[in-house]
Amino acid sequence: MLEKYINAAAKRSKADIVLKNARFVNTLTGKIQAGDIAICGDRIVGIGSYEGQREYDMSGLTVLPGFIDSHVHIESSMLSPEEYAALVVPRGTTSVIADPHEITNVCGMDGVEYIYKASQSVPLDVHIQLPSCVPATPFETSGAILSGDDIAVGICRSEVFGLGEFMNFPGVIGADGDVIKKLEAAHRAGKIIDGHAPCVTGDDLNAYLCGGISTDHECATPEEMEVKADAGVYVQLRHSSSIHDIAANCKAVNGGNMRRFLMCTDDRHAADLRTKGHIDDALRTVVAAGLDPVWAVTIATLNAAQCYNLKWRGAIAPFYFADLAVVDDLQHFNVRYVFKNGVLVAQSGKPLFDTSNRYLPQSVLNTVHISELKPEDFVLKLKGQRARVMTLVPGTVLTGCEVMNVRSANGDVVPENDVLKLAVVERHKYTGNIGKGLLKGYGFKGGALGITVAHDSHNIIILGDDNAAMAKAANCLRDIGGGMVIVESATGAVHSLTLDIGGLMSSRSADALIAESSALYERAYAMGTDRRLAAFMTLAFLSLAVIPHVKLLDTGLFDVDKFCFTDINAE
Amino acid sequence: MLEKYINAAAKRSKADIVLKNARFVNTLTGKIQAGDIAICGDRIVGIGSYEGQREYDMSGLTVLPGFIDSHVHIESSMLSPEEYAALVVPRGTTSVIADPHEITNVCGMDGVEYIYKASQSVPLDVHIQLPSCVPATPFETSGAILSGDDIAVGICRSEVFGLGEFMNFPGVIGADGDVIKKLEAAHRAGKIIDGHAPCVTGDDLNAYLCGGISTDHECATPEEMEVKADAGVYVQLRHSSSIHDIAANCKAVNGGNMRRFLMCTDDRHAADLRTKGHIDDALRTVVAAGLDPVWAVTIATLNAAQCYNLKWRGAIAPFYFADLAVVDDLQHFNVRYVFKNGVLVAQSGKPLFDTSNRYLPQSVLNTVHISELKPEDFVLKLKGQRARVMTLVPGTVLTGCEVMNVRSANGDVVPENDVLKLAVVERHKYTGNIGKGLLKGYGFKGGALGITVAHDSHNIIILGDDNAAMAKAANCLRDIGGGMVIVESATGAVHSLTLDIGGLMSSRSADALIAESSALYERAYAMGTDRRLAAFMTLAFLSLAVIPHVKLLDTGLFDVDKFCFTDINAE
Repeated sequence: MLEKYINAAAKRSKADIVLKNARFVNTLTGKIQAGDIAICGDRIVGIGSYEGQREYDMSGLTVLPGFIDSHVHIESSMLSPEEYAALVVPRGTTSVIADPHEITNVCGMDGVEYIYKASQSVPLDVHIQLPSCVPATPFETSGAILSGDDIAVGICRSEVFGLGEFMNFPGVIGADGDVIKKLEAAHRAGKIIDGHAPCVTGDDLNAYLCGGISTDHECATPEEMEVKADAGVYVQLRHSSSIHDIAANCKAVNGGNMRRFLMCTDDRHAADLRTKGHIDDALRTVVAAGLDPVWAVTIATLNAAQCYNLKWRGAIAPFYFADLAVVDDLQHFNVRYVFKNGVLVAQSGKPLFDTSNRYLPQSVLNTVHISELKPEDFVLKLKGQRARVMTLVPGTVLTGCEVMNVRSANGDVVPENDVLKLAVVERHKYTGNIGKGLLKGYGFKGGALGITVAHDSHNIIILGDDNAAMAKAANCLRDIGGGMVIVESATGAVHSLTLDIGGLMSSRSADALIAESSALYERAYAMGTDRRLAAFMTLAFLSLAVIPHVKLLDTGLFDVDKFCFTDINAE
Repeated sequence: MLEKYINAAAKRSKADIVLKNARFVNTLTGKIQAGDIAICGDRIVGIGSYEGQREYDMSGLTVLPGFIDSHVHIESSMLSPEEYAALVVPRGTTSVIADPHEITNVCGMDGVEYIYKASQSVPLDVHIQLPSCVPATPFETSGAILSGDDIAVGICRSEVFGLGEFMNFPGVIGADGDVIKKLEAAHRAGKIIDGHAPCVTGDDLNAYLCGGISTDHECATPEEMEVKADAGVYVQLRHSSSIHDIAANCKAVNGGNMRRFLMCTDDRHAADLRTKGHIDDALRTVVAAGLDPVWAVTIATLNAAQCYNLKWRGAIAPFYFADLAVVDDLQHFNVRYVFKNGVLVAQSGKPLFDTSNRYLPQSVLNTVHISELKPEDFVLKLKGQRARVMTLVPGTVLTGCEVMNVRSANGDVVPENDVLKLAVVERHKYTGNIGKGLLKGYGFKGGALGITVAHDSHNIIILGDDNAAMAKAANCLRDIGGGMVIVESATGAVHSLTLDIGGLMSSRSADALIAESSALYERAYAMGTDRRLAAFMTLAFLSLAVIPHVKLLDTGLFDVDKFCFTDINAE
């Protein structure tokens, strides 16, 4: 094997592929250089003047190392790993660190195994992190629980790359027993531990990092990023579908701390991947915001390779794997060719690999377990007029809380003045749990919306102004095996989309998913949903008990800041 | 374990040690910062405001990560690993990547094992590279041979960190069979491979790197360094005893390529370590030459940790190992305190650990295997008057060759006019091989000098103007089990120093070795040795067949440029 590379480098044999007249970013030394890039097998073997069995003229183009998404939940694309790859590889992404936290909350280790196996057929390195916090908090009902003992076993599996984002930061800071067990296990196994510590600084940050945690993708400001980078964190610039702060946050990067930044998408929907892009879009965005393009590329490639010890990735030099994204320029980052391990796998935005034969085991299907619901299940009876009402912060996944007067009639809240009823219906174990609350500022009227994607336990979220429609929406989601739904009160019409894999992802093509999803979103907006909100995705974050400030769980209203339940009835 | 760190970081328990009022270099982000550094067990647990069981006031001092020597032959200090540590640890060094190439040429794998085991008792991480090129050339007689098969077995040993400098660069570039076997074995084992490729650039460099080689410490100029860094090499700034180009070469470092530079010493004698220092001296030197001190510190710490994947080393941040060098300032780098894994191990230049109980196995003793030599063994009979005479280039380890008239009498050369007889006596296997030659320009008169250190096969070098003294010198080296010797013809006096470990290193204290060595050097100079030469070290490089231009092996006179033997008789 080495002999073949050396012979090609020394020109005793012809290279397999040569990218002629290439201009390329040398992430190792911060230069833009020129030369032919010779590839033999899966590796770059030389830069200089080379001839190959096959040659591509790179005149006018710029060759970059393949992009690395350092933290992603593939489930958030709502696509199978195969279809996800078909969208992101043509965008220049050649490696991802994937935390199957969502499907594991639904299916347990079967979910981890599914993402791993489904990823094997595509030309994308999918490094699987073992979800560390299933469930994210002990306060809600998830489909699975991974205990400290479960993690201790799972983390040693060869297909497990590391331990996924440790969301339970209070548990780490407090040195809780089961948390310590998980961290110790990863530590013993020599595997990296990803972080998730929004707004954690000072002694708390010191304590959190003493759990052996390496990364964080939850910084809200450049200042928080700088503080965390100083404390030794690999800080991730996040370009998700729901959070749009990367242009502001990339101001944290400077010549001194540059090597400590990574890029990630965390949660990015298929439609965004298709229309806007993946890490390529993050690059466009940060460069437009003024970040040096060579730094930006280095952050998206070499830095992640170093952080995650992806050997011989993230740079264009002899012996590095030939993972390459060829772009038009360092402003637009339009990806023309993508090579993965020396093979041309995408061209002009199209994948050159087949994803039609997708892996689909029974273990991740039929995951909506609820009994038939009735309109009265959605009655919300308050003790008085004053209630804690959740509020939205457009452009973020934060929620606030306002105490306000709410009118009731017949022992049930009357949704009005842009206050809607919110319900979280447990859907894993037939517990019958329904958490109930109120949400202001969403804008929808005349029915109900529902979704089986609800971070992190993925119970059913139902939002509406009509008990009957809410019940119908929940029942529909059960019938289709998970997905998204809108019920119109006026006509009784039901519009739905199936997410059959864990109630989170579609087993169908990206095209089909995107078209149906787009139609459903448009219907939500047509029914009044504030266009500044990502209609269904906004719903999916209303139950996420690790993001400030107040969330609704299947077990009740939860104050994230105080990390305990709170009463919907206020004084 | 993690619980203890977290509790200390969160101030639920007191830290073990706190460095109060510290100013420190944050190698991660290029800043000089301030705060208390809290240590618990072997780790840093927090930066901020902390109290500890034990506190040290750092006012006016600067705390740095412990230094990492990325490439060293400990044998070149002529000290045991324990005594080596006693010199370098007080200089702030807490980790070294050690290639026991010298003792392995004498003792084979026993040499590797000795360096490993002897290092276990000292507070210095000694990561052992398996010597890749034993012997360095097939033309001479070494004490051991490590074949491709031997390397394939050895590289998998847990005490072996990686594969040592691959000196046989023509063999890599040429893809020689046994070379490929060695490289593939290291590659399969997932272990790093160090390089050694002087003046190799262009396609040859591409080919060399396609052997999976990561580093190089042989760059002669800043230009060569820049080219190699661009090609993906971790480039080592070398601060050895015999090569003094670090001040010039550090000009190669810039903001773009900074993360790809490391520091190393390669070969550094005990006396230099004692009087000048180790990596601390390299830091002084490059900062005096204008290198940014924060960059210099980063190069000497974090960069090496990243290159060699020394996890949680090279920075001052929570969860990093508390390997710390506390210096007076970033100009003088006078080391006041050294902490290794959270323990104070040196203060004010003195080690706080005991090295008197040194590991000394029989396997590395009694390595001088020659029969009794007689004066007539040193008779040098030429065919005529014209001979090829080796010459010296002071300040380098290069040698030249001059064809000149040499007078003989009674069938033996008469040493005169600053031409001395040189002999290389095979000392491993009783072969009786004695290579004979002539050396001009050394300056010594009236006897013989001898040494059992002779890179890389470490046969006996004898230089003199008197056959009887030469034989006596060789026999003395046999009797003392290896070392350095001077025999005075006039008085018959014999002055020697024992290097009992492999004939390379002393089992005694650094103080004893330095004092005796100094006395022997002074005697050599008193007997006429040119003071521009490092008397005995100059001898030690006269047999190094991989350094230009003409060397003497136990098997005869060798033309390095033509890479073949040459005749001492000229026309």
